[in-house]
Amino acid sequence: MSVVWFNSAFVEGTLPIDPADRGLLLGDGVFETIAVNHHRAIWLDEHLARMASAAKELGIGFNEIAVRDGVTAVLERSATHFEVLRVTLTRGITERGLAAKSDVSSVLISLNAFDPAKQPQSLRLAVSKIRRNETAPSSRLKTLSYIDGIAAAREASGVADDVLMLNTKGHVASSTVGNLFLLRGSELFTPQLDQGVLPGITRHHILQLSGWQKRETIINIEDVFAADAAFLSNSLRLVTPVTMLDGRPLGARSVEDIKTRLETLTRRN
Amino acid sequence: MSVVWFNSAFVEGTLPIDPADRGLLLGDGVFETIAVNHHRAIWLDEHLARMASAAKELGIGFNEIAVRDGVTAVLERSATHFEVLRVTLTRGITERGLAAKSDVSSVLISLNAFDPAKQPQSLRLAVSKIRRNETAPSSRLKTLSYIDGIAAAREASGVADDVLMLNTKGHVASSTVGNLFLLRGSELFTPQLDQGVLPGITRHHILQLSGWQKRETIINIEDVFAADAAFLSNSLRLVTPVTMLDGRPLGARSVEDIKTRLETLTRRN
Repeated sequence: MSVVWFNSAFVEGTLPIDPADRGLLLGDGVFETIAVNHHRAIWLDEHLARMASAAKELGIGFNEIAVRDGVTAVLERSATHFEVLRVTLTRGITERGLAAKSDVSSVLISLNAFDPAKQPQSLRLAVSKIRRNETAPSSRLKTLSYIDGIAAAREASGVADDVLMLNTKGHVASSTVGNLFLLRGSELFTPQLDQGVLPGITRHHILQLSGWQKRETIINIEDVFAADAAFLSNSLRLVTPVTMLDGRPLGARSVEDIKTRLETLTRRN
Repeated sequence: MSVVWFNSAFVEGTLPIDPADRGLLLGDGVFETIAVNHHRAIWLDEHLARMASAAKELGIGFNEIAVRDGVTAVLERSATHFEVLRVTLTRGITERGLAAKSDVSSVLISLNAFDPAKQPQSLRLAVSKIRRNETAPSSRLKTLSYIDGIAAAREASGVADDVLMLNTKGHVASSTVGNLFLLRGSELFTPQLDQGVLPGITRHHILQLSGWQKRETIINIEDVFAADAAFLSNSLRLVTPVTMLDGRPLGARSVEDIKTRLETLTRRN
């Protein structure tokens, strides 16, 4: 079912990882989740560029050639129309001490089936009590240290489908797994990158679409309620309308056009 | 050298972990670092109680009997006077989705040599630009999602030995791996638990020591400079004086008495 590659070889069953690997012990690594449509990894170069940049900031070794070799090998085993490729990079093993350096990072690549038809067609969100920390790397980089997002998503369970997270200043940031966009008239808004949001690859492509005035800005909760429509973007689901926030309905203008254009873009890629 | 136990058996070499384990993929787990002195795990009950509480809050299964069996087995291989025991608990494997549940968590226990004599006798700190997020579980619980602390520690490299982290309100929280205490006259201050600090086990025992008035409170940077002495506490180093902050010397009153009393407590335990 699942194809797994670890440090330059395919792996069957369990992963032969060192028990001192900092990815496992300290969430010390980064990852990318990439849509695979018809055996092609969508926007692969952009995902790997983002990973390289995050790894550089965190001082984690990133061997692009080794990662690309692994991705190529794994994609040769692609078996269905829609799949999800995950590339995980950890710092590897170090001496004791948080700031300790590693000579060799670990690379884990996996490919799993993914069914776009089973993804939610719309989402009800609740505002989380857990804030995104815009001063911290974990809010800007796609790191393995995901526990706050997990806790926030768990908080929403039973009440909503996911949470909308504010940053520590009280401005709107994102959901746990998607960037937020608002549509108002001919304008498309999204929180600017210093607000504690991931520089989403799909976010970037939405900001390139013609036909709207685009603005990266500071967004408050009232702006969400005042919008004609709100949606989340990510690499797997692309565009998902948000219909409710804390039990209040949001603007219901269709975002089908944006969704369709992104679907076309990603199948073509 | 290192003794490793994983899910009810000793492990030699690499760890037979599932490639989908959320501890590895999402920093989705908690851990405890416990001093082992003369083959005994110090304050073990308190460490496991803290782990149980964190696991419960995060919805991670915690099988105390299995963990204690593992700890006992590992401690039977204790070989030197001073060692460090680490107990790591991960959520295990789940379906896709941050809020997804797991039936079986993973338990990793390791025992490594630790030399108290090689620990720093004092520390110079720098104030980090990365804040501790007091709204988030990662600031209160000892989770595997440690990347912000790692980034903060790396930021200090070359300038200082570690960082002092403020919370998002600008109040003093802690270092990356220790609680902060200030001494002023006959008073001992430490940031209160809602300030984005870990409820340190050593912190707790310091708050039980006789001979000082103790206060858990809100602390500002000026308070650190105004103190007679500042020190950090954690389970392995116990008490380490802080001599400088951002290049400015701090109060130099001796904290040797507190240190000695904790050393006595932990050897007796």
